[in-house]
Amino acid sequence: MKHPVPGGLREEEEERVLVSEQSWRPCPKARRRLRGCLEWVKQQLFRVGEDWYFLFILGVLMAIISFMMDLLIFRLYEAHRWLYQEVGDVLVLKYLSWTMYPIVMATFSTGFSQSITPHSVGSGIPELKTILTGVVLEDYLAIKNFGAKVVGLTCTLAAGSTVFLGKVGSFVHLSTMVAVYLGKMRTSVMKEYENKFKQNEMLVAAQAVGVASVFGAPISGVLFSIEVMSSHFAVRDYWRGFFAATCGAFMFRLLAVFNSEQETIAAIFKSDLKIDFPFDLLETFFFAILGAVCGLLACAYLFCQRWLLAAVRENRLTAKLLATDKPVYTALVVLLLASITFPPGLGQLMASRLTMKEYLITLFDNRTWGLLVPNASSLADPPSKDPWGLWQEWCHPSATIFGTLAFFLMMKFWMLILATTLPLPAGYFMPIFVYGAAIGRLLGETVALLFPEGIRSEGALHPVVPGGYALAGAAAFSGSVTHSISTALLVCEATGHLSHVLPVILAVLVANAITQKHQPSFYDGTIIVKKLPYLPRIRSRHMASYQVVVEEFMERRVVALAKGSGFEEVLAALDTSADAEYPVLESAEPSSSPSSRATRAPYCTQKTGTLGDNCAIEPIMLQLSPWTSLHQAHHLFELLRLQRIFVTRFGELVGAVSRAEVRGDGGGQAGGTGGGQGRGNNVDKPHPTSSAPLQLRRAIEELANPK
Amino acid sequence: MKHPVPGGLREEEEERVLVSEQSWRPCPKARRRLRGCLEWVKQQLFRVGEDWYFLFILGVLMAIISFMMDLLIFRLYEAHRWLYQEVGDVLVLKYLSWTMYPIVMATFSTGFSQSITPHSVGSGIPELKTILTGVVLEDYLAIKNFGAKVVGLTCTLAAGSTVFLGKVGSFVHLSTMVAVYLGKMRTSVMKEYENKFKQNEMLVAAQAVGVASVFGAPISGVLFSIEVMSSHFAVRDYWRGFFAATCGAFMFRLLAVFNSEQETIAAIFKSDLKIDFPFDLLETFFFAILGAVCGLLACAYLFCQRWLLAAVRENRLTAKLLATDKPVYTALVVLLLASITFPPGLGQLMASRLTMKEYLITLFDNRTWGLLVPNASSLADPPSKDPWGLWQEWCHPSATIFGTLAFFLMMKFWMLILATTLPLPAGYFMPIFVYGAAIGRLLGETVALLFPEGIRSEGALHPVVPGGYALAGAAAFSGSVTHSISTALLVCEATGHLSHVLPVILAVLVANAITQKHQPSFYDGTIIVKKLPYLPRIRSRHMASYQVVVEEFMERRVVALAKGSGFEEVLAALDTSADAEYPVLESAEPSSSPSSRATRAPYCTQKTGTLGDNCAIEPIMLQLSPWTSLHQAHHLFELLRLQRIFVTRFGELVGAVSRAEVRGDGGGQAGGTGGGQGRGNNVDKPHPTSSAPLQLRRAIEELANPK
Repeated sequence: MKHPVPGGLREEEEERVLVSEQSWRPCPKARRRLRGCLEWVKQQLFRVGEDWYFLFILGVLMAIISFMMDLLIFRLYEAHRWLYQEVGDVLVLKYLSWTMYPIVMATFSTGFSQSITPHSVGSGIPELKTILTGVVLEDYLAIKNFGAKVVGLTCTLAAGSTVFLGKVGSFVHLSTMVAVYLGKMRTSVMKEYENKFKQNEMLVAAQAVGVASVFGAPISGVLFSIEVMSSHFAVRDYWRGFFAATCGAFMFRLLAVFNSEQETIAAIFKSDLKIDFPFDLLETFFFAILGAVCGLLACAYLFCQRWLLAAVRENRLTAKLLATDKPVYTALVVLLLASITFPPGLGQLMASRLTMKEYLITLFDNRTWGLLVPNASSLADPPSKDPWGLWQEWCHPSATIFGTLAFFLMMKFWMLILATTLPLPAGYFMPIFVYGAAIGRLLGETVALLFPEGIRSEGALHPVVPGGYALAGAAAFSGSVTHSISTALLVCEATGHLSHVLPVILAVLVANAITQKHQPSFYDGTIIVKKLPYLPRIRSRHMASYQVVVEEFMERRVVALAKGSGFEEVLAALDTSADAEYPVLESAEPSSSPSSRATRAPYCTQKTGTLGDNCAIEPIMLQLSPWTSLHQAHHLFELLRLQRIFVTRFGELVGAVSRAEVRGDGGGQAGGTGGGQGRGNNVDKPHPTSSAPLQLRRAIEELANPK
Repeated sequence: MKHPVPGGLREEEEERVLVSEQSWRPCPKARRRLRGCLEWVKQQLFRVGEDWYFLFILGVLMAIISFMMDLLIFRLYEAHRWLYQEVGDVLVLKYLSWTMYPIVMATFSTGFSQSITPHSVGSGIPELKTILTGVVLEDYLAIKNFGAKVVGLTCTLAAGSTVFLGKVGSFVHLSTMVAVYLGKMRTSVMKEYENKFKQNEMLVAAQAVGVASVFGAPISGVLFSIEVMSSHFAVRDYWRGFFAATCGAFMFRLLAVFNSEQETIAAIFKSDLKIDFPFDLLETFFFAILGAVCGLLACAYLFCQRWLLAAVRENRLTAKLLATDKPVYTALVVLLLASITFPPGLGQLMASRLTMKEYLITLFDNRTWGLLVPNASSLADPPSKDPWGLWQEWCHPSATIFGTLAFFLMMKFWMLILATTLPLPAGYFMPIFVYGAAIGRLLGETVALLFPEGIRSEGALHPVVPGGYALAGAAAFSGSVTHSISTALLVCEATGHLSHVLPVILAVLVANAITQKHQPSFYDGTIIVKKLPYLPRIRSRHMASYQVVVEEFMERRVVALAKGSGFEEVLAALDTSADAEYPVLESAEPSSSPSSRATRAPYCTQKTGTLGDNCAIEPIMLQLSPWTSLHQAHHLFELLRLQRIFVTRFGELVGAVSRAEVRGDGGGQAGGTGGGQGRGNNVDKPHPTSSAPLQLRRAIEELANPK
């Protein structure tokens, strides 16, 4: 409304301004209402919580990084291929160009990532698994590792199928680093406890994003990350993982469309297996055999891998190299690997000119290789892009495709294990996946050879589809090495092919049953070798875990503080033990009750006043009683991600239980009783807890052999 | 070896026997080795644990039951169809044959199941969800419900699409009953605690079997049952669910092959959507709109359903009917439903002659309905079995397929809600699934009408596939009604069609975001209406839940027993309160510490001796401190499935917290702060805890409105 006020020039001016403003904005009521509406929408959007935006940004960001990295790796790989072709027919030059390129790449990757931070080495999944159980690994998720890992990983992957490494594990690590960094930016207002809670939720989502943005598979991304990383899972974290993983997978495939690689959003390793008659019932038998073969090979692989990892650390020469000259070690190993895969040499027997992705595309091929007739050998030509040309790589004039596949499996077995000892950022899932696909393809081709006219059921002849066996093999081998079942779904999502899902699950279950009984998973094995803090699984059927009570294995010598104690006493306590937190008793009497705990923090050592005045004292949430069973204590540690819990009897502090105590028992029991009972009931044998006092150790050993 | 002993006739005979035995069994060494081998295999197989056998039997058994039930229902349905055709063209007879059959079936179902046990009514999922949180519902899983539920469910489903009910929920209940029964048979030797633990593991697996053996979908069966039933999940229970569900799904589809329904193992609602170009990028926008529509409709559905469920219980007439004459109520409701679906009447506008499975097959159809031209109306003919004949049911001479679809959606909305009030064994998932598919089909056909020539992207024209929208609609609507995301995978597994997975997940996420913000899920809603004990979810972002401590809301008046107390004192305590267990103090002083608990059991009331001598006293595992926050306490209750936990301060018993206290707070907070924040953060408003004392209630109300 207009309020003309009579007055001087100034007021008139003001009035003119008002008028002109009003002339620009008609319908004040409608505008006000609109503004109200917008306010409401804005408020609604923000009330939904920032989680949505956060997860969206995380998913999209990781997808873009994944895609850009793929693009860069492809370019680098093309450069290598070009170089190898341009060099001409001089064998020495060819050899040099074939070996030097991956050596330079891998050595640079090692040197660069090691020089910035040693945390960027490896896949990172064992460490993440440890972090998710509540252990704090300082700096492991710091953003400064990010650059080192991205650059290192790109170089590692650009070295190509010679080094035979993947990107899944490292990408999960990258994704969690980004999530923690983004989380730090927004959670400055939140309280500490809430923050910790939230961070865990976000870590779970970030892991799902990591898997999803590599394979473009949202559902199995979530499931795989849950299976591999966690022991317990809250259903309310579910949607976070799904939302972020969907954003990631969507963006990842969308970028492929924008880049004109694909016409529309489709599966990443799209396969065109026949779906009108995928498999005959009789073939389920062969799928079960495939599962058993994969399970046994996975056992052998895991055993050899752990053995080699330990051997490399113990051998004087390699240990010295790894301690001081990591790039030299890398260069030597890659030289060996590259020499073996040199195409005019042994490489021609193992299709070594294919990239990791091309390996998968050929192995998941719809055709039956045994029935195809290869062209004349054309090793000099570059491998062409069409499926026929790619398949030609598997053919060799003097060996059948059975020969090349078997040779590939034989050589890659130890080359793959050797590659896992390289101190550079890499993922170890993809090579296992490819290896499994090759196992499946070999068995599938054999079945197709046994039934050249197909399997007859109800009058009609149905040809065998070896591609289906390759799917099942990839899922079964990778699933049993990582102790996970969701690889069955991963294979379906990555190929967009669902009709083989039942035999694939069958093979995965059989393989898992065998491997989980005899070997810890790839990641648990690495945790054991790296001696990370870790809570072993307990066999739920074992009676002793119900009979042993906390009193029998708790640590009795707990350093406690009294509420009124001064600086001297606190200092003495800090000197006596290296605990991260101390129980605070109500009075100095030994029979007094702990009501709270003080954290070991620098600001706690002020020289004046008492403990109660100066230090951060938090109330204790839970206390155990001495009659709690080992099984219950283990369950609590696992569920609540505890580090240490105090034991009280009639309100008197009598001891404490930390992971070391629970672990000591678990390990002892496993040793006493031998084999397990199937999934989840094996105790993965941990390294002996050297810190436990002798008395306790003896008790544990007695417990280990119950009558 | 032969030991010839000189002696009488008898010894010679013996020798001869020995010789003849040996002549029958050559190569004693090889045999001994073989026998040793077999022993070893046997031992190995049994050492793997009986779990495998148990789960295998469970899966196979449920699949057989599911298949037999399907077969029987099909026969009964065929009989109804035949009757309806044979009756001729007399409208009255037609009407009677159309309405009487479902009325008889549904009334018998109600009467039979009610007369045996009232527990067999409904889907059973809300009760199972409550049981999984640790509440003991007596007799709910007793095997005597089994027969009643199987017979009742068969009759309900034989009433066909008139009543519009499904079998998923009931089948989950059946599966858990079988699992508990099988479990009882084998766990006689185990200890109680272990047994309880094991039973929970088996329940989770059984639920997965229930879903998997209905849809033949192993992976999504496991995921859906987790999402719907549990709040936390142990990864080690995973393989059990997968193994049992795979056995169930495999057997279920295998039986279909043996019965010559299918040529080989294939998806249950196999669809042949075009997979070379499933959808254009622009279409993701329409999929998001579809998700929003499904979410809004799901909100309306859930609200109306709860309202009607309460209204039917409160209305004098219906309440009286439901209390005394349940079959009469069923008969009246089914008469109304059948009259509306009568094909010559309104039924012709809603394709009422199709079965539930045929509804799904037509809605997931590959063709675009708007482009097809129907034959002349043939309402008199029975619907033929080919897709074209089935589709004809959706056509009406005076209404387009848009008209029939819209009418179907409008009428089925309230008919579906009305059907859920019927007191008979039934599942409520399938109708929601079909309804969602119809929403999707309608929107898909609309999009296809808007872009009759397809959507142009990069030069090429790509036609719209309305079947893909039907998939997304089914997943989004059923997912948002049940608050689950795994329906996206369920739809893919049930149709064997994976290429639409990304837009389907998108729609499901959008729909879930809307519904979870405004309404409790279908099962939670039923729990609220049925007043089952239940722990509401807590909003993880709400600050107050971190600030409120146990001291402020715990129950202070705890009836405790002293260890030396005699019969009189125990009797007095039992009279004073109705607690299920009592803390046992070390001495009679009030400041004494509780070390153990006595269970309220009949053998505890022996008239001589003290409590310590006669009663079952168990040690207390955990104690809370008064400074534990509400959030932490809630977390503990949820994780450990606690019913009640005692609070001690300096070793002195000061109170107890049970679900009622935690729930009271949760509800109060929700009322104070309004809307939630997305998945998992809403507090589903519970019924007010009338048992809480006034003082406590006031405290809760104060907490509900923090400054």
